[in-house]
Amino acid sequence: MSTLERLEATITARAAASPEESYVAKLNAKGLPKMAQKVGEEATETVIAAVSGTGGELIGESADLVFHLMVLLQAKGIPFGDVLAELDRREGLSGLEEKASRKDA
Amino acid sequence: MSTLERLEATITARAAASPEESYVAKLNAKGLPKMAQKVGEEATETVIAAVSGTGGELIGESADLVFHLMVLLQAKGIPFGDVLAELDRREGLSGLEEKASRKDA
Amino acid sequence: MSTLERLEATITARAAASPEESYVAKLNAKGLPKMAQKVGEEATETVIAAVSGTGGELIGESADLVFHLMVLLQAKGIPFGDVLAELDRREGLSGLEEKASRKDA
Amino acid sequence: MSTLERLEATITARAAASPEESYVAKLNAKGLPKMAQKVGEEATETVIAAVSGTGGELIGESADLVFHLMVLLQAKGIPFGDVLAELDRREGLSGLEEKASRKDA
Repeated sequence: MSTLERLEATITARAAASPEESYVAKLNAKGLPKMAQKVGEEATETVIAAVSGTGGELIGESADLVFHLMVLLQAKGIPFGDVLAELDRREGLSGLEEKASRKDA
Repeated sequence: MSTLERLEATITARAAASPEESYVAKLNAKGLPKMAQKVGEEATETVIAAVSGTGGELIGESADLVFHLMVLLQAKGIPFGDVLAELDRREGLSGLEEKASRKDA
Repeated sequence: MSTLERLEATITARAAASPEESYVAKLNAKGLPKMAQKVGEEATETVIAAVSGTGGELIGESADLVFHLMVLLQAKGIPFGDVLAELDRREGLSGLEEKASRKDA
Repeated sequence: MSTLERLEATITARAAASPEESYVAKLNAKGLPKMAQKVGEEATETVIAAVSGTGGELIGESADLVFHLMVLLQAKGIPFGDVLAELDRREGLSGLEEKASRKDA
């Protein structure tokens, strides 16, 4: 089992715990806007670490970002595998580059 | 090879291409602040999709976010494996929850 | 008439123009999520300019942020005066500080 | 004296207070990345309020965003008047639209 699969399983298990015992359950209890807000916050911290922090800080903030993205997806009932499948569907980078370029055009 | 490992390999290969041929090379040519900016943009789109969009939109924006995070990490010379190792290091969710809770305190 | 009052009046006038003629009308035509997205983007650019850019860049990005915030408020039918009134209502900074501190607690 | 001028004067005064007494001083003591982070956070909350919240929530989050932007500018020694001057310099909206359109092109 990969790190992200394990993380996803843990998040799903914790979401059902009590908010007093689990940070994931506490976030779920606060509702979707708060969970989305955390993704925005961690992305800002990732951005700041990338342009003015150390490599270690960027690694830590990226881990926080991935974690909170998975919490958000779990709350919406979306398996992380669907995100991976979307990345696959874009047929590697060429497909993704096409999409990304279209967005900028 | 997993989706993310394949994606990372493709991003590394494309970063060395010419900006005319590759979106990844084009982003790299624009510099780190622009790559960080894309992570912020995709995070905002993920947030909006989560609170007001469809599941399909959230999947698409999450894929964009993961992709641009990997582009940023590649540009900083940080393997995505280091982010996974950090998630592992936090010893599953209990460690991560501890850290996250400390941050909020 | 102050700069922000003038800007707000111009934004209101332009919102009624055709999307071909006016950037504000074009944003309005794209819908609320796109207008909100622009606020997120400009905020990220402001953050990047603050931690790694020049003073001139920070001024420019802050202007972009204020502008797109006003476009968003206009689209929601909220006068910028309501935001100023809220800042006043917090009784200067002491009230605002109280609120901000409560949020962090 | 306008609301924003008064707010700016209060922020400047508070920045010199002790971190125990003042939220502004506390933010300044945490350093620039933390102040920039707050702008990112409040922008995300503004985005969420705009697409899924009430008008009152959007007003409150916009006030928080303007407040934290002014704290950031003060910390960088930039008068808010410079941001207003930049908005003026763009010659009302036509100049600003031009710039914004160029950015998107």
